[in-house]
Amino acid sequence: MQTLDKSKELTSSVRLINDKLNFTCHVEGNPPVSVDYLPPLGDNLGYTSLELLLISLSTCLGSALLVFLRKMQKTISTFEISSRGIRNEDHPTCFREIHLEIHLTSPDVNEEELKKLVALSEEKYCPVWAMIRGNVTVNVSYRIERTA
Amino acid sequence: MQTLDKSKELTSSVRLINDKLNFTCHVEGNPPVSVDYLPPLGDNLGYTSLELLLISLSTCLGSALLVFLRKMQKTISTFEISSRGIRNEDHPTCFREIHLEIHLTSPDVNEEELKKLVALSEEKYCPVWAMIRGNVTVNVSYRIERTA
Repeated sequence: MQTLDKSKELTSSVRLINDKLNFTCHVEGNPPVSVDYLPPLGDNLGYTSLELLLISLSTCLGSALLVFLRKMQKTISTFEISSRGIRNEDHPTCFREIHLEIHLTSPDVNEEELKKLVALSEEKYCPVWAMIRGNVTVNVSYRIERTA
Repeated sequence: MQTLDKSKELTSSVRLINDKLNFTCHVEGNPPVSVDYLPPLGDNLGYTSLELLLISLSTCLGSALLVFLRKMQKTISTFEISSRGIRNEDHPTCFREIHLEIHLTSPDVNEEELKKLVALSEEKYCPVWAMIRGNVTVNVSYRIERTA
């Protein structure tokens, strides 16, 4: 079997598993993810496609930030991102706005530094953000705590 | 507890769980999804953010198509979408192209109908596609089989 070079190319497969909109989704080496849609079209038997996009964006930005913060020798005790996507009322019912709240615990990270790194990620180092640029407004807020 | 109206707003949360880039990701009511990055920055302990975007796009397009096909009273015995995303070599290392192969088994769906529905989804009914429009080239191919 030829191994995919994931730095160049990524793959996935999704398969319908009921007579509504429940999909089992798969990338080799990982447990499957169940995706479904809201009732009445679906049965809420999994993540929605749009929730997976929120997770994709949050982890992508989070990874970019963590790589920068570690290069700066910062100490990160906890790191979380909560996201909220506001949908259009008309089709396409995609997100018109996404709000990301970065919550981290660190003795030595300050908000100004973090804002600069977010700007750098938006501009160049967060691939998922690059793919939605111009189509979705992304707002980022910060909550930094000093105690672990 | 106030229930979120998911037709208007969706949420997710992601939390770093090791000292590299492994996140546990969560939307209420679903088992968590593990996200990680490629070595050496990560340890391959989960989906990558970009793989989740492929799943998000595939299931979103698949759902839009299935809703249309069922309105047209078509019979769908199996329905799968395989995706392949080709990354930029330079930052941002997002997808410059995504290839989706729709593979379905049906006695009464033809490729021309399916192409029209894909065009309609691209234009208006696939929210995830709407969010990457103009930034990523999406190519769709078809494989329709007559026997279940």
